Amino acid sequence: MHALKVTRAEDFPEWYQAVVRDADLAELSPTRGCMIIKPWGYGIWERIQGELDRRIKAAGCENYYFPMMIPLSFIAKEAEHVDGFAKEMAVVTHHRLKAVDGTLKPDPDAELTEPLILRPTSETIIGDAFSRWIKSYRDLPLMLNQWANIVRWEMRTRMFLRTAEFLWQEGHTAHADKAEAISETMRALEMYRAFSEDFLALPVVAGEKPENERFPGAVSTFSIEAMMQDGKALQAGTSHYLGTHFAEAQNIRYQDKDGGMTLAHTTSWGVSTRLIGGVIMTHGDDDGLRTPPALAPRQVVIVPMLRGKPEDDDLKAYCASLAAELGALNVFGAPLRALVDVKDARPADKRWDWVRRGAPLICEIGPRDAAGGQVTFIKRNALREGEKVKSHTLSRADFVAQADVLLRGMQKELFNEAKARLDGNIRDGFANFADLERYFGEDKEGEFKGWARVHWAKPTGAALEEVGQRLKALKLTIRNAPLQQPASFGACIFTGASAVEEILIARSY
Amino acid sequence: MHALKVTRAEDFPEWYQAVVRDADLAELSPTRGCMIIKPWGYGIWERIQGELDRRIKAAGCENYYFPMMIPLSFIAKEAEHVDGFAKEMAVVTHHRLKAVDGTLKPDPDAELTEPLILRPTSETIIGDAFSRWIKSYRDLPLMLNQWANIVRWEMRTRMFLRTAEFLWQEGHTAHADKAEAISETMRALEMYRAFSEDFLALPVVAGEKPENERFPGAVSTFSIEAMMQDGKALQAGTSHYLGTHFAEAQNIRYQDKDGGMTLAHTTSWGVSTRLIGGVIMTHGDDDGLRTPPALAPRQVVIVPMLRGKPEDDDLKAYCASLAAELGALNVFGAPLRALVDVKDARPADKRWDWVRRGAPLICEIGPRDAAGGQVTFIKRNALREGEKVKSHTLSRADFVAQADVLLRGMQKELFNEAKARLDGNIRDGFANFADLERYFGEDKEGEFKGWARVHWAKPTGAALEEVGQRLKALKLTIRNAPLQQPASFGACIFTGASAVEEILIARSY
Repeated sequence: MHALKVTRAEDFPEWYQAVVRDADLAELSPTRGCMIIKPWGYGIWERIQGELDRRIKAAGCENYYFPMMIPLSFIAKEAEHVDGFAKEMAVVTHHRLKAVDGTLKPDPDAELTEPLILRPTSETIIGDAFSRWIKSYRDLPLMLNQWANIVRWEMRTRMFLRTAEFLWQEGHTAHADKAEAISETMRALEMYRAFSEDFLALPVVAGEKPENERFPGAVSTFSIEAMMQDGKALQAGTSHYLGTHFAEAQNIRYQDKDGGMTLAHTTSWGVSTRLIGGVIMTHGDDDGLRTPPALAPRQVVIVPMLRGKPEDDDLKAYCASLAAELGALNVFGAPLRALVDVKDARPADKRWDWVRRGAPLICEIGPRDAAGGQVTFIKRNALREGEKVKSHTLSRADFVAQADVLLRGMQKELFNEAKARLDGNIRDGFANFADLERYFGEDKEGEFKGWARVHWAKPTGAALEEVGQRLKALKLTIRNAPLQQPASFGACIFTGASAVEEILIARSY
Repeated sequence: MHALKVTRAEDFPEWYQAVVRDADLAELSPTRGCMIIKPWGYGIWERIQGELDRRIKAAGCENYYFPMMIPLSFIAKEAEHVDGFAKEMAVVTHHRLKAVDGTLKPDPDAELTEPLILRPTSETIIGDAFSRWIKSYRDLPLMLNQWANIVRWEMRTRMFLRTAEFLWQEGHTAHADKAEAISETMRALEMYRAFSEDFLALPVVAGEKPENERFPGAVSTFSIEAMMQDGKALQAGTSHYLGTHFAEAQNIRYQDKDGGMTLAHTTSWGVSTRLIGGVIMTHGDDDGLRTPPALAPRQVVIVPMLRGKPEDDDLKAYCASLAAELGALNVFGAPLRALVDVKDARPADKRWDWVRRGAPLICEIGPRDAAGGQVTFIKRNALREGEKVKSHTLSRADFVAQADVLLRGMQKELFNEAKARLDGNIRDGFANFADLERYFGEDKEGEFKGWARVHWAKPTGAALEEVGQRLKALKLTIRNAPLQQPASFGACIFTGASAVEEILIARSY
């Protein structure tokens, strides 16, 4: 018996929904395709924001806030950009309601002269500001970031992974030349890799997207890709070198040292609440989420075994002083986050709530623990021995002394587990497309396949389109060409010609 | 000569715009009525968020995130609420664009069955969630908060004070009974008062709004009101007791201890980026903003007097080590925020940039300071002696040792200055409406008038409407009835009847 009604093996998509619901992460809202992010989920997002914001600022970016509503004409400026986004735009057309025959309707007299679109991304409105702010080489580089809500109309939605509204961070930078802009693109990519691996315990492969998977308007797009427990890939973050495409469309020019007017080179990069979906599908188990300790809104949760008796007061006092002692510790560079759960509910129910949420250390303190100066606890990342929940007991002094080591150890264990899964499930040895077809063509619904690592001749244009179609028939896409490449290449699996690159191919979210 | 092109005395509204622009706080965007918040302004907002979030969580509220787009039918549920907001709603009607004769337009085939409105406030969508989440008395109180962007279509906009989109925090709570809900309403009000006074150095009067100034759908609305340097009032935060109005409209009921179904009592409370406007108009002077040290994104800014010579390196090293030493200090419960401004610009220009932004302590370090182990600095809140900028010099050791005391002292001085202005400009002694008319009726454009404190019989309905009209003719409104009331009352200035309450009347933003 597990804490969730469905296991990963039985039905992975259903299991995912069960974790999202039962771990108090999010739920569907009455607004179609949008979610309500609940305290444990939002707490995780706050932790992501805090840590990533620190890293973004350390790189020299400053935070700004731009309007969410963008004049329609702005979107039309960059041709590829509008093609990429026009199909999923929410459009504001009126600024007032009016009761018509007792029913509220958009007031026909309050139609906007120019409709506004809700930002699907902010290159256009930020590029416009760049064109006003950048005058001389002294104004470069201009590096900014924004934390914001984003709207992309999606027909099929899945919580955290694909919703009409989501939360993200978008970095936008402008540079004097290509070399500096590419260096910034790679810096952001490496920042995301290190952040994912260190903080989310999410191992990823950083690499470049093929031409047909680029961000609309980009010269090159890089991504970090993580492997979920069903073997699919999740694009967890992207970094784009935009060349001078947006600079041309929006007239972002600066006076260089020789007095000439030169186009700036721009970049953009972002991660979103989608990361939370990646954390769930990487670290979750059949009892719910296992939140990496660095990321957990609460790292140690103390459940007093209250019984509605006079001794309860002593027990509560013991738990409160334990939490205070823990809160004075420093772990992962910040005060340890401990909580005593004194809610009016059965202790066993509270324990299982925290198991489902994935609080890293869950202490169940009874009168005997309090009297004996002990702490009985479970490690959420190694909850069971066989079928049984495994609990540990330490003296209170030892528990406090070891809390930091325990939490750091669990963070490492979660990473290692996921890293072994990623490394062990990238398959080589596909000599040609038929091999790939055989391997991916034969799977049953939901079978774990992992990723394929193959060599290709990096076709472009129509030839790449054809490759895309062949892969699509197998429900596959090219994830990226890893930054780490081998010294030599075999034959292209699509054409048999000499390959120039190694790429990862997988099913994906 | 001052650092701004216009002084407060010459033209207060123009001066305000100059501070917003020249202190790098915000600028108008190409989206009508919306602003771009720039680094110093957004940094101030981040500080507000950080400190207020801490206080909100300490009170037991948890953060959630609800959709920004709300189905139109939700808004219609509470009758007063829809009347209050229908005139200023941005309405999403389409979810796709289409090129028609080469021009992008909302695609007629992608019209939404039910339009969505952009949240002007979230009582309706949160109330709907309350109705699903609250089942038993054990689920109460339910206390949540959200940091979000808000859209209210405004015809006349002014940066930070009134824009189509702004950022805010909205608390929403549900309680078992009236007493508990009112207690929460008052807790939030007191939280805002203490936050404004301690953290923003913004003295306020907390009190209850008259019936005609209530939030649409509220039983009672409380506010904190601050006095700006032109004598006008700024509503800086509100807290509403909503009674069972929203609970009835949205069926928020719980099973009480006896098994019966009972309506919950709800509250809501919020502050917004408008607070930044209040800080500007309270603490700004003719040289720009004076940012209260607790709030300042940078508390000490060090400008090295670089001259493009080899000695520059020593100077930079001296400044960097000074900043590191300062950064190791704790002030207002957090590490001191110090910055060395090494931008490629003239030192004098950099100094004046920081004066306009209002960095509390601005150090100008030349080779002589570095050689002599000194720090030369200006205190932004007491920038000048006569017309001249006054600078101070301390040994480096003394400056570091005194930094905390200096910053705390400046915070206190800014508060005291504003508190003296508030206390000294609330006028009593208006025996009747004619007195009020005489005092406020005779002013010239922009003349400082302050507030009036008068007694009234607290009329309701049509009688209150009439009072409102009489005040409106003088461009006045009732701000609030302060929580601190006198022991006895004279005659109502509107009717001559026995008064029951003391109220504040003022021009306002």
